[in-house]
Amino acid sequence: MPSKRSDGLQIIPIGGLGEIGKNSTLIRLGRDGLVVDAGLMFPDEELPGIDLVIPDFGFLAAEGVVHGIALTHGHEDHIGGLPYLLRTVQAPVFGTPLTLGLARRRVEETQGTPAMKAVPVRPRRPVRIGPFEVEFVHVNHSIPQACAIAVRTAAGTVMWTGDFKFDQTPIDGEPTDFSRLAEIGEAGVRVLLMDSTNVERPGYAPSERVVGAALDQIFARAHGRILVTTFASNVHRLAQVFRTAAQHGRKVALAGRSMVDTVTIASELKALTIPRGTLVPLDQIRRLQPRQVAILTSGSQGEPLSALTRMAAGTHRMVTIAAGDTVVFSATPIPGNEAMVGRTINQLYRQGAEVIYGSEVHASGHACQEELKLMLTLIRPTFFVPVHGEYRHLVRNQQLALDVGLPKERTLLAENGHVIEVQGNRIARVGTVEAGNVLVDGLGGVGQVVLRDRKHLAQDGMLIALVTMDRRNGELLGAPDIVSRGFVHMRESGDLLEECRKRVREAMDRCRARGTTEWGAVRSAIKDALGQFLFEKTHRQPMILPLLVEV
Amino acid sequence: MPSKRSDGLQIIPIGGLGEIGKNSTLIRLGRDGLVVDAGLMFPDEELPGIDLVIPDFGFLAAEGVVHGIALTHGHEDHIGGLPYLLRTVQAPVFGTPLTLGLARRRVEETQGTPAMKAVPVRPRRPVRIGPFEVEFVHVNHSIPQACAIAVRTAAGTVMWTGDFKFDQTPIDGEPTDFSRLAEIGEAGVRVLLMDSTNVERPGYAPSERVVGAALDQIFARAHGRILVTTFASNVHRLAQVFRTAAQHGRKVALAGRSMVDTVTIASELKALTIPRGTLVPLDQIRRLQPRQVAILTSGSQGEPLSALTRMAAGTHRMVTIAAGDTVVFSATPIPGNEAMVGRTINQLYRQGAEVIYGSEVHASGHACQEELKLMLTLIRPTFFVPVHGEYRHLVRNQQLALDVGLPKERTLLAENGHVIEVQGNRIARVGTVEAGNVLVDGLGGVGQVVLRDRKHLAQDGMLIALVTMDRRNGELLGAPDIVSRGFVHMRESGDLLEECRKRVREAMDRCRARGTTEWGAVRSAIKDALGQFLFEKTHRQPMILPLLVEV
Repeated sequence: MPSKRSDGLQIIPIGGLGEIGKNSTLIRLGRDGLVVDAGLMFPDEELPGIDLVIPDFGFLAAEGVVHGIALTHGHEDHIGGLPYLLRTVQAPVFGTPLTLGLARRRVEETQGTPAMKAVPVRPRRPVRIGPFEVEFVHVNHSIPQACAIAVRTAAGTVMWTGDFKFDQTPIDGEPTDFSRLAEIGEAGVRVLLMDSTNVERPGYAPSERVVGAALDQIFARAHGRILVTTFASNVHRLAQVFRTAAQHGRKVALAGRSMVDTVTIASELKALTIPRGTLVPLDQIRRLQPRQVAILTSGSQGEPLSALTRMAAGTHRMVTIAAGDTVVFSATPIPGNEAMVGRTINQLYRQGAEVIYGSEVHASGHACQEELKLMLTLIRPTFFVPVHGEYRHLVRNQQLALDVGLPKERTLLAENGHVIEVQGNRIARVGTVEAGNVLVDGLGGVGQVVLRDRKHLAQDGMLIALVTMDRRNGELLGAPDIVSRGFVHMRESGDLLEECRKRVREAMDRCRARGTTEWGAVRSAIKDALGQFLFEKTHRQPMILPLLVEV
Repeated sequence: MPSKRSDGLQIIPIGGLGEIGKNSTLIRLGRDGLVVDAGLMFPDEELPGIDLVIPDFGFLAAEGVVHGIALTHGHEDHIGGLPYLLRTVQAPVFGTPLTLGLARRRVEETQGTPAMKAVPVRPRRPVRIGPFEVEFVHVNHSIPQACAIAVRTAAGTVMWTGDFKFDQTPIDGEPTDFSRLAEIGEAGVRVLLMDSTNVERPGYAPSERVVGAALDQIFARAHGRILVTTFASNVHRLAQVFRTAAQHGRKVALAGRSMVDTVTIASELKALTIPRGTLVPLDQIRRLQPRQVAILTSGSQGEPLSALTRMAAGTHRMVTIAAGDTVVFSATPIPGNEAMVGRTINQLYRQGAEVIYGSEVHASGHACQEELKLMLTLIRPTFFVPVHGEYRHLVRNQQLALDVGLPKERTLLAENGHVIEVQGNRIARVGTVEAGNVLVDGLGGVGQVVLRDRKHLAQDGMLIALVTMDRRNGELLGAPDIVSRGFVHMRESGDLLEECRKRVREAMDRCRARGTTEWGAVRSAIKDALGQFLFEKTHRQPMILPLLVEV
């Protein structure tokens, strides 16, 4: 379906796998466009072998002029797709210094990405991007320098909350900028796009400060080494670990590349202050007493190759978990990662560690129901589009908007690629663009055919029937060869495979008897005969690949 | 490692995938044995293509005499492995009538299972099984007629809690038999094996009755059809749905085979009473007004082929979800199923249904921390072995035992296959037996090699290099053929595949130049050359299969 262009104000959510508008959004007025965020997703086991899922930015090439890219904050799901976006759209990138620092690393690490023109911004200081006036507004989130973004257009103001929460006691002393949000709301917001991540949770998200208090208790109690794992990008959390460690006379070492990278970038940009003398190289902790050591490590999601998972398995080069160690999971599993995290915790317990996990050592960075309602009340938008969530989260967020008094017809539930248009007192979907996801495995994209084959291979494996035919008379030379992988154990299945050979020969004989010699038809006959036989015998349906050699 | 047999009292947890002692346990005194429970597990995406995971009962064949099999309750993870156990051990099966009814269905459905000799028991009426006196004690759980089991032996009493909770207001008016548990505890229990499922949850599990109140409110409010999904085996829940529907003037239809089966068996055994005239066939609901209809459907875990998932997708033969429908998820996702359940909920919302899910319409059947402590206090065992949970749950359950005053040396953390021996005032692991898991796909078992190949195929697919060689001189006839699946899209990757052909030819030339003609060596050379080339070009590592035809 082609997109329906018009001179009206249009908004298009892009990418995000099962979530809507999570990774990116296009706003346009006539031919003038602005992209807000450019993230990517890390897929779960539903997409075997896929490393990354990036939004399909391809449609932007034909969609007028993109004057700029504005980034709300520095998390992967908001900046990780930037290298791919820049291949389609060479526009300047706007964001706070830390966000740009993290984005720059992504761009530089990704082969074949054009240089990035970065324009640092400050909250409350609007910048002009093409015909738009864009203002960044400070919000609390699990990374410093996160912002909401207000875009003033000739057709009114469009506002993104970005990922946010209201923290009255943030550890950097900078709460979400209530007064500026209130002023912007008072001046009039035409469309609000709001985070839906935590919409299923009642009440308020706890303050980041409560984690500090919990860490303090743990540090006061522990006699051995303390390992803390969290998202590397949660710089406030890292700051709290450094501070608590220093207070309790412990040095802090870093394990895992993402941890080292983020601490380096955040320190350079003054977004992280480390108490003098607290940071030590990982290879020096063996000279210290266990009660002098804290380790900040990656692996909070139980990722198989992460530092903590390798420590638990006894395969980390420098650190092995031992009785007396205390391991703190200062993060909750991302949906889909629960089992991996659980296995890591089991393994840590088996090694004799004490493990602390659960809600008291983590605070979510996303607004819960009462905070979402507060944002709606502060901004009082004319139209409301919930984003950042699966469809059910959007429905729940829409319900909150109705609860605070917005009429249902002024809200809209979108999907990725929907062209949302605001015209007069009406918000509606007016078309669709191709703005789904590109699956990346290794260096390239993976299509649906390849993915379908992988799922088939994963279910029941495959079986190759290799036949050699005399090209002159179509006669079979020798017995067909059968090779299988991921189906049955070949050495233990001699009879089954022998029977397969027989079925192939019979199928070919039937073809010859009917005068069928064309390989496509013979191939089908072999596939059908083997498929039916194997299903009867094993109730499995391996991928069957007949291969022909003509000599 | 061989098992260390002795004349002492031994306990061996068996099966359960990542959980310990979940599916089954052997207790033995000298040569005399009794098996408690015989369940199976449904695996997650970690085990591609695997349908069932059953305990490896094989070791029992060589382990003395098994006098009987005692089943605590009728859930799949406690009875589903019975057909496989009976192939190894032909012993009578003891349980309450509903448990035996459900077990009998499993046995009859499974090809090649010997007949089952069922011996119905009643709580508080001990039965003799070999040298053991076995008493079943009524407990509350999410299925009727669930029991704890006390086994009196010459070496003392061993007690299994089974899956249980303490419900003071159960809907059948039969709370867990406190007084009998107290009496048994008072008489002395040598070893207690206790459920650890909900050990991470503080407080008490809510009563089943609170779900009835929540359902009543939903039925009072809804104007359209109401669909309720839950575990079919949760017969008390089904009873509450039937009763609430009747009170609100709705008929109930059943969707999904497990739902129909369970209602049939439970009704026959008087474990379920359906108000007269309430149950109607599914194909007759179209004659009723939406506000007269309730549907009890399978699919509470978002299973792709379940009735509810098909209704949501619009592919169910008789029911399609429409605006006005209310769908109630009266179950929580089993860990690992969260994403599937979420997708079903999204799809239901997209079809316009109202969806109600979350804690208010479900009550867990497993004891939380305070209930676990209560059980420990009632039984006051000499030794404590936490079971039914992953390792971390066992650790947490052990901690509860220490909290109520048990010395640590009287507790033991086991793994499946560990031979636990109680001797004097000591509990210890004295050996190991092979009591892991058998993976079942279709009709047969799947070994580690097959599973490893499936995972490899799922990650990056495969590539076949087919070479035809002149058997007389080892010369390559024609160009090698390259076939791939699940790796790259073949039609779009002509250059890559052409380059593969070249690499194969070069590898073979190098072999010939070195005088290497043995196929094993040539094969390795082809694999290495292709593997290295493909990783450089794509950063993927497909399974590479060189195939040889000699003519």
